[in-house]
Amino acid sequence: MVYVTRRATFSASHRLYNPKFSEAKNFEIFDKCANPNGHGHNYVLEITVVGMPRQDTGYVIDLTKLKQVMKTEILDKVDHKHLNHDVDFMQGVIPTAENIAKAIWKILEPKITEGKLISVRLQETENNSVEYRGEE
Amino acid sequence: MVYVTRRATFSASHRLYNPKFSEAKNFEIFDKCANPNGHGHNYVLEITVVGMPRQDTGYVIDLTKLKQVMKTEILDKVDHKHLNHDVDFMQGVIPTAENIAKAIWKILEPKITEGKLISVRLQETENNSVEYRGEE
Amino acid sequence: MVYVTRRATFSASHRLYNPKFSEAKNFEIFDKCANPNGHGHNYVLEITVVGMPRQDTGYVIDLTKLKQVMKTEILDKVDHKHLNHDVDFMQGVIPTAENIAKAIWKILEPKITEGKLISVRLQETENNSVEYRGEE
Amino acid sequence: MVYVTRRATFSASHRLYNPKFSEAKNFEIFDKCANPNGHGHNYVLEITVVGMPRQDTGYVIDLTKLKQVMKTEILDKVDHKHLNHDVDFMQGVIPTAENIAKAIWKILEPKITEGKLISVRLQETENNSVEYRGEE
Amino acid sequence: MVYVTRRATFSASHRLYNPKFSEAKNFEIFDKCANPNGHGHNYVLEITVVGMPRQDTGYVIDLTKLKQVMKTEILDKVDHKHLNHDVDFMQGVIPTAENIAKAIWKILEPKITEGKLISVRLQETENNSVEYRGEE
Amino acid sequence: MVYVTRRATFSASHRLYNPKFSEAKNFEIFDKCANPNGHGHNYVLEITVVGMPRQDTGYVIDLTKLKQVMKTEILDKVDHKHLNHDVDFMQGVIPTAENIAKAIWKILEPKITEGKLISVRLQETENNSVEYRGEE
Repeated sequence: MVYVTRRATFSASHRLYNPKFSEAKNFEIFDKCANPNGHGHNYVLEITVVGMPRQDTGYVIDLTKLKQVMKTEILDKVDHKHLNHDVDFMQGVIPTAENIAKAIWKILEPKITEGKLISVRLQETENNSVEYRGEE
Repeated sequence: MVYVTRRATFSASHRLYNPKFSEAKNFEIFDKCANPNGHGHNYVLEITVVGMPRQDTGYVIDLTKLKQVMKTEILDKVDHKHLNHDVDFMQGVIPTAENIAKAIWKILEPKITEGKLISVRLQETENNSVEYRGEE
Repeated sequence: MVYVTRRATFSASHRLYNPKFSEAKNFEIFDKCANPNGHGHNYVLEITVVGMPRQDTGYVIDLTKLKQVMKTEILDKVDHKHLNHDVDFMQGVIPTAENIAKAIWKILEPKITEGKLISVRLQETENNSVEYRGEE
Repeated sequence: MVYVTRRATFSASHRLYNPKFSEAKNFEIFDKCANPNGHGHNYVLEITVVGMPRQDTGYVIDLTKLKQVMKTEILDKVDHKHLNHDVDFMQGVIPTAENIAKAIWKILEPKITEGKLISVRLQETENNSVEYRGEE
Repeated sequence: MVYVTRRATFSASHRLYNPKFSEAKNFEIFDKCANPNGHGHNYVLEITVVGMPRQDTGYVIDLTKLKQVMKTEILDKVDHKHLNHDVDFMQGVIPTAENIAKAIWKILEPKITEGKLISVRLQETENNSVEYRGEE
Repeated sequence: MVYVTRRATFSASHRLYNPKFSEAKNFEIFDKCANPNGHGHNYVLEITVVGMPRQDTGYVIDLTKLKQVMKTEILDKVDHKHLNHDVDFMQGVIPTAENIAKAIWKILEPKITEGKLISVRLQETENNSVEYRGEE
């Protein structure tokens, strides 16, 4: 069993805001992240897949294919987009790093058929990051 | 003469768009950077000041003071903001990295009185960055 | 369950030295780390907390609060200090990265009430780091 | 129990190629990695050892000794070498990152006697990395 | 005048060897870099162009175009290649970082028509890098 | 003319303190950097040499020799040391990054005989760095 990680980046904007909260409560909880016009990040996404390297290729998964899946399923949908307004799979949830990571897991998990998805890590800034491992 | 550099980061969103251009021309020039709802970056700002270290302190400039100027004059105004909508000093210009760097120079240059501002570098993504040295 | 990590840095000095050992044995074991006047590092501290993101905020833990706890409980006590002489919670132990990480765990674990502390990572140099996960 | 990680780098070249496959199939699977003259990487190797810090030293393992083992057993054999042609422990396997990591584990595992080897991580490029934890 | 930098990476192998020198002298001068089967690096290439940002776009140069030129003219020719054997523009010169940077300058300089090429930086390892600014 | 840069790191402690100032004035100017027991950093040192690559080697300077000079003349004297107490070439000056860089220049400049020393850069933390280019 070897863990294989592919890293990619995307640039997006978002606003942390719960429409059920008052304006005041939104700012109390989300502070400057609740600014109406949003702000943005260079997100770093790391996808880890675990499996047995194949005898004939030495690969757990062809990283070119993983790269392609990450591009088609995730990056093309979020890169240079506003996560609250432009991204279908983020509708109805607050786009915190936690929720983005969980949404990415949900999309990628069934698409990965060589090996098994084991971790979605998302770095939002150089100081903040999250990881989702499919645990409920 | 020693060159002293202070680095800071901020997260902001922007949209590259020239209102004088047609929608089609904006997308031709700015591509996905013209998406209506904007996108964002973790900007890395590096300010370089040059001067003679003082005999009695060994400092060209007290970096705590430079840090404070950068915070008050720049970071508090751009961090977690939308550069097109929320930032007074970016009004009327397209918020490319080039124009942001020039605007930051214009603000900081007169505020730096120990040593002399010599460079404003702004990294927009891990692959793209600009530097302005006050040259016309 | 999502793992949330907050990173911070501090600059401190230390000396690795066991007063029960002879001078010769100290240098045999700790080599240049036993130099009498000490030396220092830019430590990188990463605190990971695990929990369920709240439905109404999308947060496992408000990172601003975690940042504040890390500052008050740890950074204010170690930053720009000598770990052997100035830091109460390091008295009586040799300030190896291992022991610093364990001491930080002991302090932070009861303070983290949203989610649960799961990892204290401490990078001492770009080549050396440790992680403590609360395991005995 | 503390996890201690030592990082090192080496520069090597390799070619991904299975002699049992046709030329066409090799390029289909390994693409440009199958180019006959090979290509190379600055590999980043991270070795993690877990154990109880000793009471009298505060160390799980003397990192100088771990550094020495990594140098003698691995780095001296792979640095500035061609993994397919020059490295005895890579003969007969395709030198994917997965297989390199497994081979390194096999060599280091019996050599580490303070603490226990728990992870071999190998970064091949800034976007691709693998980890082997000794799991079958 | 603003300096705009685009960064890209490629993985290649090379051997430092002067056929006019004896085997012994090659090893004396190039040490392990003269190993017959070569070795490799993840090169980091940074291209800097200087010019006036255009009034109507805020760009010195459209980085998408610079990226494309770097890809077509350089990266496609060197990535996953052996610099001594596979790269036409490196024939007849020893592929040191110095010579690679100069060769890249010679190719890119006439291709850059918005702004002016001012620097080619090439990082060979995390500790070694070179820069060529077109100076004779 | 090519600029060649070699990077190295060292870990040291220091205290910023001018004995001619009162205790109060020292803390006013140097703040926590004046703490009596000192603190420390992982310094990153970058030495840049400029010259013509030799026709027969492709090198401006043999980096193995530059590495050796940096080790013998600088790193062996500062690594794991206290800059105020243990380092002869820092006696009588306040060990700010500015003054360390200037002292390193003074030592290395006459030792570099292939090419010419053009820059000493010293990074003290991830946010603070200085550069000395031999300019008075």
